[in-house]
Amino acid sequence: MEKGTPTPLTTPLRCIVKLGGAAITCKNELEKINEENLRAVSIHLREAMMSGEVVDMDWSKRPGKADVSVNVDGISDQITMESSNFVVVHGAGSFGHFQASKSRVHKGGLDQSLVKAGFVATRISVASLNLEIVRALAREGIPSVGISPFSGGWTTFQRNVASADVTTVAKTIDSGFIPVLHGDAVLDHSQGCTILSGDVIIRHIAEILKPEYVVFLLAVHKSFPIQSFIKTDVFGVYDRPPSEPDAMLLKEIAVDEEGSWRVVNPAPKSINEQVEITVAAHDTTGGMVTKISEAAAIAKLGIDVYIVKAATDHSLKALKGEVKGKIPDDWMGTAIRFMRK
Amino acid sequence: MEKGTPTPLTTPLRCIVKLGGAAITCKNELEKINEENLRAVSIHLREAMMSGEVVDMDWSKRPGKADVSVNVDGISDQITMESSNFVVVHGAGSFGHFQASKSRVHKGGLDQSLVKAGFVATRISVASLNLEIVRALAREGIPSVGISPFSGGWTTFQRNVASADVTTVAKTIDSGFIPVLHGDAVLDHSQGCTILSGDVIIRHIAEILKPEYVVFLLAVHKSFPIQSFIKTDVFGVYDRPPSEPDAMLLKEIAVDEEGSWRVVNPAPKSINEQVEITVAAHDTTGGMVTKISEAAAIAKLGIDVYIVKAATDHSLKALKGEVKGKIPDDWMGTAIRFMRK
Repeated sequence: MEKGTPTPLTTPLRCIVKLGGAAITCKNELEKINEENLRAVSIHLREAMMSGEVVDMDWSKRPGKADVSVNVDGISDQITMESSNFVVVHGAGSFGHFQASKSRVHKGGLDQSLVKAGFVATRISVASLNLEIVRALAREGIPSVGISPFSGGWTTFQRNVASADVTTVAKTIDSGFIPVLHGDAVLDHSQGCTILSGDVIIRHIAEILKPEYVVFLLAVHKSFPIQSFIKTDVFGVYDRPPSEPDAMLLKEIAVDEEGSWRVVNPAPKSINEQVEITVAAHDTTGGMVTKISEAAAIAKLGIDVYIVKAATDHSLKALKGEVKGKIPDDWMGTAIRFMRK
Repeated sequence: MEKGTPTPLTTPLRCIVKLGGAAITCKNELEKINEENLRAVSIHLREAMMSGEVVDMDWSKRPGKADVSVNVDGISDQITMESSNFVVVHGAGSFGHFQASKSRVHKGGLDQSLVKAGFVATRISVASLNLEIVRALAREGIPSVGISPFSGGWTTFQRNVASADVTTVAKTIDSGFIPVLHGDAVLDHSQGCTILSGDVIIRHIAEILKPEYVVFLLAVHKSFPIQSFIKTDVFGVYDRPPSEPDAMLLKEIAVDEEGSWRVVNPAPKSINEQVEITVAAHDTTGGMVTKISEAAAIAKLGIDVYIVKAATDHSLKALKGEVKGKIPDDWMGTAIRFMRK
């Protein structure tokens, strides 16, 4: 805990939000945005961070239109556009995954033609997703600007962050914008290249910019395999695969100084002794075990982490910071927090 | 001239290429790529910088296709993909121009709603052009990676470059990739924000990475206003508006230690005493006078600058470095070079 260390920010950072790749793309269809979810999540983000009127900031052509659909001349300075400080980081979902896994970019080896081509192809795919997400947020009036980690000088050594231009992220926030970063293909000093996941980016930014809280938005599982069962919704982290009938949502996990964690709600007695942490979420960079350890590493800094289902009242509450302190009884999600041993 | 100063590169930079916005977009149509020109320019770039087979590196979905159209499994390590060191910088053309001029982003003032929204809108538009150009180059087998100046920490003070992460550009080149930068909306320390033009980016990179030569690719003027006249093609810099029947192409301009320049070919006697430098090229950031002074500032460093019509044999020759030394008699273009007084 270095809560007292100053950050490079003029005004404190309120929240870092992770848009899970699976929550905003259609998992089983190559490079397809889940438009409905992305719109719902964008509206929630606007409600959580902005006040005042909605000014559409995407003045680019829309599919099927020949011209700009925004009345730019109607934007007057009477409109206030105050936003609180947020950072958005998104995963790749059905963008980037195919390209990266086919070429094994995460294993490095830029002297191999396939890896080199795959690196280019992966960056194209994730950059196009980033552009679509920035546009969706801008349409909801969020002053979002895309920052690709590769362009921002993020590199790794043995797959850990070696360099990162967090100053640009800080300046962007201080200028009143919402930076939108993403998991990316980057250069690695030991193996040439690798994949830098959105979760690792969040931890690194959290360490330096010290947000009040971090929210991970999980996939909305419309295509959940056992849809006929009662439990088709995954709201956070469970004590066993959430498809199992007795699976219990872990509402609060405590992380101590050493980074080890324990479940505090539900009370330890009531849950399975051999806790088998899992959710139905997938990501290309390690699944839920990675996510819990990343979350624990953030919580260890004294920053609350909430893992919630995207586009629900529960995620909106988390984004608004309404689950700080005592967690409401009807809130469905997993809070991971620092607590001394 | 600081030709002896080391650059941050392991192997020297051969060339920086400017793709003029007007050369690769349809000037009079909002956010429309000139596909034909972009393809022709991409093929020229590949011929100038690569040897070996063409490996399609754009594995993303193409319009109208549901799946990847590249046979990824056919990419073997038998394929050599050596490229010489190039940097590509492009302008905005019909991308970004509408958004930036409507909101007067170049004048600054992020406290005004219109400017703030316009900043977001401009970045969306230029980022989408960058993505399309990177994809076009990747389809021709050029290992191109987009680097947005905003993301790369480029900022200005009174509209001059204040900070810029050229290290990332150098690392990208040293890893065997072709960085693709672009004119962008950036933060300005004196007025909040501004537009950083591709030409200013080129000068800054040229100063640090010291390329052998710089090529500016001009628009192919299909929509030249006086098409019925004989002189509809603009090959470089002229002594008067190129639409005038007696306009003469300036084939060689010499720049001295102090940065002042004089025409050396055609021989000074043969041209208009009152040289009225102009071309039919337009750009949002200052037109041809700016371009000449940027070119002169580069030439002053001892770096040859060629201004040529895109997608012609003349531009291919310039890109290949075939006009270094004595300029071939049949070459149409403008060379701007250092020459002691």
